[in-house]
Amino acid sequence: MGKEVDSERIGKQFDFIREIDKEKFIGRQTYLSDGERKENDAEHAWHMAIMTILLSEYSNEKIDVLKTVTMLLIHDLVEIDAGDTYAYDEEGKKSQKAREAVAADRIFGLLPKDQGEKLRALWEEFEAWDTPEAKFAHAMDHVQPMMLNSVTEGKSWIEHGVRLSQVLGRNQSTVDGSEVLWEYAYQNFIAPNVEKGRLNKE
Amino acid sequence: MGKEVDSERIGKQFDFIREIDKEKFIGRQTYLSDGERKENDAEHAWHMAIMTILLSEYSNEKIDVLKTVTMLLIHDLVEIDAGDTYAYDEEGKKSQKAREAVAADRIFGLLPKDQGEKLRALWEEFEAWDTPEAKFAHAMDHVQPMMLNSVTEGKSWIEHGVRLSQVLGRNQSTVDGSEVLWEYAYQNFIAPNVEKGRLNKE
Repeated sequence: MGKEVDSERIGKQFDFIREIDKEKFIGRQTYLSDGERKENDAEHAWHMAIMTILLSEYSNEKIDVLKTVTMLLIHDLVEIDAGDTYAYDEEGKKSQKAREAVAADRIFGLLPKDQGEKLRALWEEFEAWDTPEAKFAHAMDHVQPMMLNSVTEGKSWIEHGVRLSQVLGRNQSTVDGSEVLWEYAYQNFIAPNVEKGRLNKE
Repeated sequence: MGKEVDSERIGKQFDFIREIDKEKFIGRQTYLSDGERKENDAEHAWHMAIMTILLSEYSNEKIDVLKTVTMLLIHDLVEIDAGDTYAYDEEGKKSQKAREAVAADRIFGLLPKDQGEKLRALWEEFEAWDTPEAKFAHAMDHVQPMMLNSVTEGKSWIEHGVRLSQVLGRNQSTVDGSEVLWEYAYQNFIAPNVEKGRLNKE
């Protein structure tokens, strides 16, 4: 077609694109709004990407929306190898960092070097929780499942016997990303479910 | 928290965010790479958003990546009401436009006016197939299922008795978005499957 195409480059890009299909099989603990099926990582990332586009106005600090969206779209890819670690699984969380670093080497390593390094750096930025984009992305990562938990009358919280103190502990960082969204989430997703006994006050 | 928040606005944003969870229940005809389960719209959109970020270099014309990603993330939301119409379902396609316009009114209408109008316009831009972003988005929308069909040895093509002429007809527009990606898809996803009899030459 007249254009010079680097066939090794495009081959690597499609190797990665084919590989990440597996994220659709990584299950999370959150129930979807029907209360029947649990969410997978790809659905979760899609939901948060749209949320970011709509809610970026509430970020404490100005964020680069495309960067934040990209970060959220790719932040769980390491779970293709490392599996999902439930937010309140303290045992699993101990080995999570090491398992995920090995996964990042392999998965981002499928891409051409420039793109692999760029996505890897974005994932590390998310993990380091330091930049405005990473902070907002973590706020999304907390608010989205709280919303679904609330819609499903706390189903996953009840199943796991989650305590209010755990939710509050995890969400100190939501405030760092967005005071507005934390306040909204507290009033709409947490407080009513504490009142109804779906989150354990002890 | 000191910030003035428009509670009607944020309420509408979350009404929409809660509603679009239903896109995760809209099934498509394409099998995932395991060849067992079919893909849903949210997974499909997530996959294409990442593809756009990685493959925008192959667009025939320069594209705004965030705009294209947003377009792809939201382009199937109308199917929450209108259902998925299979690419080769000629009967269903006759009523598709009318069904989807009514759906767009309701779903984008949940948002605050400014955001609802913006997403609605993006969806219409996708449907009109005219801008560089819309053309590239359609190329993604064709290449992604072709890739999965190829990975799964043409399973969905075989089930539906899809003919090569149908795939080629549908993909004339892929060339409009990206000559490079069309060439790659033809060589890697189509030609080998014609050879193996998974796409009907008649």
